[in-house]
Amino acid sequence: MAGSFFKGCFLSLFDYKTEKYIVAKNKKVGVLYRLIQLSFIGYIIGWVFVSKKGYQETDEAIQSSIITKLKGVSVTNTTESGLLVWGPEDYVIPPQGEAVLFVVTNFLETPNQRLGYCAENPKVLNGHCRDDKDCEEGKMIVAGNGIMSGQCLRKDENSTGTCEIYGWCPIERIFKPQGPLLTNAENFTIYIKNFIQFPKFTFSKSNVLETTDDSFLKKCRFDQVLHPYCPIFHLGDITRRAGYNFQDMATLGGSIGIIIEWDCDLDKGHSNCHPQYHFTRLDVSVSNKTIATGFNFRHTRYFKNAAGETYRSLLKVYGIQFNVMVHGKAGKFSIIPTAINVGSGLALMGAGAFICDLILLYLMKKGNSYRERKFEKQHTEVINQHLRTTVWKMERVTRSRTI
Amino acid sequence: MAGSFFKGCFLSLFDYKTEKYIVAKNKKVGVLYRLIQLSFIGYIIGWVFVSKKGYQETDEAIQSSIITKLKGVSVTNTTESGLLVWGPEDYVIPPQGEAVLFVVTNFLETPNQRLGYCAENPKVLNGHCRDDKDCEEGKMIVAGNGIMSGQCLRKDENSTGTCEIYGWCPIERIFKPQGPLLTNAENFTIYIKNFIQFPKFTFSKSNVLETTDDSFLKKCRFDQVLHPYCPIFHLGDITRRAGYNFQDMATLGGSIGIIIEWDCDLDKGHSNCHPQYHFTRLDVSVSNKTIATGFNFRHTRYFKNAAGETYRSLLKVYGIQFNVMVHGKAGKFSIIPTAINVGSGLALMGAGAFICDLILLYLMKKGNSYRERKFEKQHTEVINQHLRTTVWKMERVTRSRTI
Amino acid sequence: MAGSFFKGCFLSLFDYKTEKYIVAKNKKVGVLYRLIQLSFIGYIIGWVFVSKKGYQETDEAIQSSIITKLKGVSVTNTTESGLLVWGPEDYVIPPQGEAVLFVVTNFLETPNQRLGYCAENPKVLNGHCRDDKDCEEGKMIVAGNGIMSGQCLRKDENSTGTCEIYGWCPIERIFKPQGPLLTNAENFTIYIKNFIQFPKFTFSKSNVLETTDDSFLKKCRFDQVLHPYCPIFHLGDITRRAGYNFQDMATLGGSIGIIIEWDCDLDKGHSNCHPQYHFTRLDVSVSNKTIATGFNFRHTRYFKNAAGETYRSLLKVYGIQFNVMVHGKAGKFSIIPTAINVGSGLALMGAGAFICDLILLYLMKKGNSYRERKFEKQHTEVINQHLRTTVWKMERVTRSRTI
Repeated sequence: MAGSFFKGCFLSLFDYKTEKYIVAKNKKVGVLYRLIQLSFIGYIIGWVFVSKKGYQETDEAIQSSIITKLKGVSVTNTTESGLLVWGPEDYVIPPQGEAVLFVVTNFLETPNQRLGYCAENPKVLNGHCRDDKDCEEGKMIVAGNGIMSGQCLRKDENSTGTCEIYGWCPIERIFKPQGPLLTNAENFTIYIKNFIQFPKFTFSKSNVLETTDDSFLKKCRFDQVLHPYCPIFHLGDITRRAGYNFQDMATLGGSIGIIIEWDCDLDKGHSNCHPQYHFTRLDVSVSNKTIATGFNFRHTRYFKNAAGETYRSLLKVYGIQFNVMVHGKAGKFSIIPTAINVGSGLALMGAGAFICDLILLYLMKKGNSYRERKFEKQHTEVINQHLRTTVWKMERVTRSRTI
Repeated sequence: MAGSFFKGCFLSLFDYKTEKYIVAKNKKVGVLYRLIQLSFIGYIIGWVFVSKKGYQETDEAIQSSIITKLKGVSVTNTTESGLLVWGPEDYVIPPQGEAVLFVVTNFLETPNQRLGYCAENPKVLNGHCRDDKDCEEGKMIVAGNGIMSGQCLRKDENSTGTCEIYGWCPIERIFKPQGPLLTNAENFTIYIKNFIQFPKFTFSKSNVLETTDDSFLKKCRFDQVLHPYCPIFHLGDITRRAGYNFQDMATLGGSIGIIIEWDCDLDKGHSNCHPQYHFTRLDVSVSNKTIATGFNFRHTRYFKNAAGETYRSLLKVYGIQFNVMVHGKAGKFSIIPTAINVGSGLALMGAGAFICDLILLYLMKKGNSYRERKFEKQHTEVINQHLRTTVWKMERVTRSRTI
Repeated sequence: MAGSFFKGCFLSLFDYKTEKYIVAKNKKVGVLYRLIQLSFIGYIIGWVFVSKKGYQETDEAIQSSIITKLKGVSVTNTTESGLLVWGPEDYVIPPQGEAVLFVVTNFLETPNQRLGYCAENPKVLNGHCRDDKDCEEGKMIVAGNGIMSGQCLRKDENSTGTCEIYGWCPIERIFKPQGPLLTNAENFTIYIKNFIQFPKFTFSKSNVLETTDDSFLKKCRFDQVLHPYCPIFHLGDITRRAGYNFQDMATLGGSIGIIIEWDCDLDKGHSNCHPQYHFTRLDVSVSNKTIATGFNFRHTRYFKNAAGETYRSLLKVYGIQFNVMVHGKAGKFSIIPTAINVGSGLALMGAGAFICDLILLYLMKKGNSYRERKFEKQHTEVINQHLRTTVWKMERVTRSRTI
C-alpha cells in the first residue's frame, strides 16, 4: 500500500500543472492587454536585443596601451632666448610618448638665474612694503619667490616698494602672452598607436590600419570621412574638431581630450571592430566661461660654471595638454545572457497582467462578477460537493422507483 | 464557415484571460503574504527608487581633466648643497601639473659625481670582501652602484672591506632622515582645477566656484564646512584630513589619495551638482603596519666642465605623492529604467507567493484539501461532465413522468 | 450593516489567494517542465551563487596606489658616449616610481649639438634637392630637423643632395639597432608596492607579504608557484611570462602590461585576499604582426659653456615600457542581492511554464481539451449555475412526491 502511495506521489511529480485562467469577454481590457504585451515584446526585441545586444556576453575590461609620437619643428626668436629651434624632444613634456602629453606653444625664459638678493615681484600679494618693518626677516609668503631679507626696496622715501628676497635672481618678469611663439605648432602631427585587448575573448587589435602599403603611414592624415583609420593627426585639426581655434588656445594653453572608442561586435568578425575618435575640450565648462582658463607651468635647466657655482634657466611654458583616453567594450553571443533577457522580459509581462486585472476587477462595471469567478471561494466547491451528493442520491431514488 | 471560424479565433484573441485564484481562508498565510508584499513594495520604493534612484538613467563614463598647481617656497641649508631656495619648479615632480604629483619634502644631494673608481657602499649585500677573489672583475650586483674592478679595498690585511667599483664616484653616503628639510612644505598650497563632462547628458562642470569675486580664488582655503567649493588646499590640511601628521609623513615620504566625487542628480538642476572631496592615505594597509613605508627616488642633473667631461649631481628625494582621482556619476529621469524597475519589482512578488504556497500546501493542517482545490484534476471535470449528463437525463425522465 | 461590510472587506484582505492550477496528466510535458525547472535551479545555484557569488554585495571601486623601484646597474661602451655606468636614476624614465615606467635598453647619443647650419638627414622625405630652388628659405618640413636656409648641399653639380637647415647640428646619425646595449637589463629587478582599498567595506591591503622575516624582501624573487606573494620581479622573467624574449624586445623596445588582480571574498577573512599577477605584451596585436613595433623617444640634456653658449646632448632611447594596472573587486554577504537573485531566478521559471504551455496547448494531440479546461469560459459557469438551479427544483419536486 505505502509503496503504491509513494509511486503515485512520484508519478504525480511529472504531471504538468498549468495555471487555470478564466476568460473575460471584455474587449477593452483584452485589447489593452495585447497592447501591453506587444509593447513589452517590442521592448525586448527592439531595445534589449537590437539596440543593447542583450544576447551577447560583454567584456568592458579593455586593456589598452598608448604610444604617442609627435613630429614637426618650430623656430622662435625672443630677446631672452635668441633664435631657437624646437623639436619634439623639447616641446613635448614629458618626452616619453605617454597618453597624457603637453605640447609647448608659448614660453618665457628667464636665463642665468643665480641664488642671491633681489626685489620681490610687485604682482605678489603681501610683497609690497612701506618700510623695513613690513618685510620680516626669514618670512616666506605662499605666492612669493623667496625668503625675505628684512629690507624694503623703494625708489624714494615716500613711494611703496617691494621687499627684498633671497631667491633665484633675477626673478621672472611679468609676461602677458599676446600670441603663441611656436606659431606653426598647429602643423605638428601626432601619431597615436593604440593597442587594445579584450582578455575575456582573447581578442587584440590595433588602431593602425592593416595595410601592405608601407608609405601609407608616412603620408596619411586622419579624416573622419576619407581616412578614418589613419592614426596620424594634425594638432590644428584636433582642436578644430573639438570646436576651438588652435591659435586661440595656444596663447594661454588648454586641455584637449582625444577619446578612442572601441565598440566591437565580435559576432561580426575581427575586421568589423574599428576605433572611433572623439575630440573634446576638457578645461572649459559650459556654464562657467569666466574661469581664467589656460595651462602653464615652470620647469628649470640647471648649469654649473667653471667655478662650480650653480645657475639655472627658468622656463615658463604655456601649451596644450592632450589626454588620450580609451573606452571600449566587446560583445559576443552567449546563451546565458540571452536566456536571462528573454526570461526577465517574459516575467515583466506579469506586470502588464497585474495592471489589466486591476482595471477589469475594480474599474469595470461587471467587475464584481469577474471577481467572483476569478477568486473561487471555498463554499462554491462545498456547494458543488453537496450538489454531487444530492444527484447521486436522487439517481438512486429514481432508479429504485423505475424498477 | 471557415471565415467565421477564423473570425472567432481573431475575436477570442482580444478576450482577456486572467488567472483563476482560489481563496484560502487562512489568516496566517494571508497575513504573511501581505507582509511579504509590503516588504517588496517597501524595497521597490525605498531602496530602488529613493536610495538608488532607479527611475534615472545614469552615466558613469565621466570625462575628467585635472590641472594642479602648487605655490610656496622653502629654504634648505645642508653641507652638500649649501643654502638653497626651493620653488614649485623644483619640488614638484613632474612639474607639468598632472593628476599624480610628487612633492619633495626631504632630500640628499651627492654633488660632483664623476665616472671613476671608488669603494662600494658597505650597505650593499655581496659587496663585502676579504680579498680580491671576492670581487670578480666585471661583475655587477643587483643592488650595487657599478661594475667591480677586481680589487678589494681594506684598511688592513685582517679587516673586511668592500669591493672597488667603477661607477659614479663618490657614491651616495648613508643617510637616515631625521626630519624633513623642507620644513614649511606643510604650508604649500595646491590648486586643483577639475573639469568634468558627462557625454551622455552633454553636461559639463568645474570644481571652481562660479563667482564674480575675482579675489576669492586668491584668498580662499578649502574647508569642509566654511568653503567646500574652494579648490585650494593646504598640504598639511590634506594629510590631517587623511588622518596623518604632515611632518611625520614628510620625513620618509608617503602617498595620499585625493578623491573628488561627483554625484549629480541632474533632475535637480545644474547648480545642485557639487564635488565632494575625500582624503585617504594610500600606502598604509590597516593590517600590516610593519611594512617599511616611505617614498623616495633618485634623479640626476648632468653637467659638463670646460674640457667637456661629464659630471652630475645625484639627488635622492623623499616626499609625498598626491594622487588626484575623480569618480562620478550623473542620473536623469528616463522612462525605460523606471519601467524595468517597477516591472521586475512586481515580478519579484511571485517569489513571495511561491513561499506562501509552500507553507499553505505542505505545512498547514488542511494543506491536503487546499491542494485538491488548487490542483484541479481531470476526473473532477469528468465527474462534473458525467453529473451534467445525468441531470439532463433525469430532467427528461422527470419531465416525461409529470406529463 | 455598512460597518460589517467594511469589516468583511478588511478581513478578506487577509484571505490568501493562490492561483488555481489544472493538472494535465501528460508525462512528456511534465518531464520537460521538471527539466526546465531543474536547469533554472541549477543555474541559480551553480552560476549565480557558486560561480558569480550572487549572495554578495560587491565593491569594484578599488582605490590603488603603486610605487615601483628598480635595481640593477649596467655598463655601456659606445664611440659617442664612451664608457658609461647606468643606474636606475638614468635608465628609468620618469624616475619617480610611477605605475607607468620606461626602462632604457638601447640608446644613441648625439653629443655636443649646437644651433647652426648643417645638411638635413637624407632619410627625411622632401629634404632632398637638386638645386637651391628645392630648398625654400624659411620652410619647415614636418619630419625635418630644422628650418631651411635656402641652400642645397651637393657633392657635385650632378648629384642629388639634401637641403641645408638651421637647427641643432650635427644632426643625429642613422642608427639601426643590432642588439640592446644595456645587455644585462634582463637582470634588473622591479619592486612593485601596491596598496589597495575597498572604501565600501573599509578594507585595505598590500601586495607585500606580511612576514616577520626582514630579509625576505631583500632575497625573494617572484615565482607563480614558489613565491606568489613576493613583489620583486626580474625584468627578463616578466617578458618571458608574457611570452616574449627579453633580448628580442630590448633591441627595438616594446610595451608590457603587468596586471595585478585582486578578487577578494571578504566572507572568507582578511588573509584570503591575494593578488594575482598577469603579464601580457601590449603593443602587438594578434592579427597584425606587420606593424613596425618598437618604442623609442628622444630626450635632451642642456649644457652651457664658459661663454654662456648653449649646447646639448640628444639621446634617442629604446626600451620597454612597463604598465602596472590594478583591477579588483571585493564581495561580502548582503541580504539584498541575495533576495534579488533568488527572486529573479524564481521569476525566470515563469518563462519555462510559458514554453511548456505553448507545447501542451498547441502542439499536443489533446491540446484542444486542455485548452478548454485551462481557459474557463463564462458559459461553463452559467451552465453550472443552471445545473444547480435545476437540481434544486428537481429535489423539491422529488421531495414533494415522496411526501
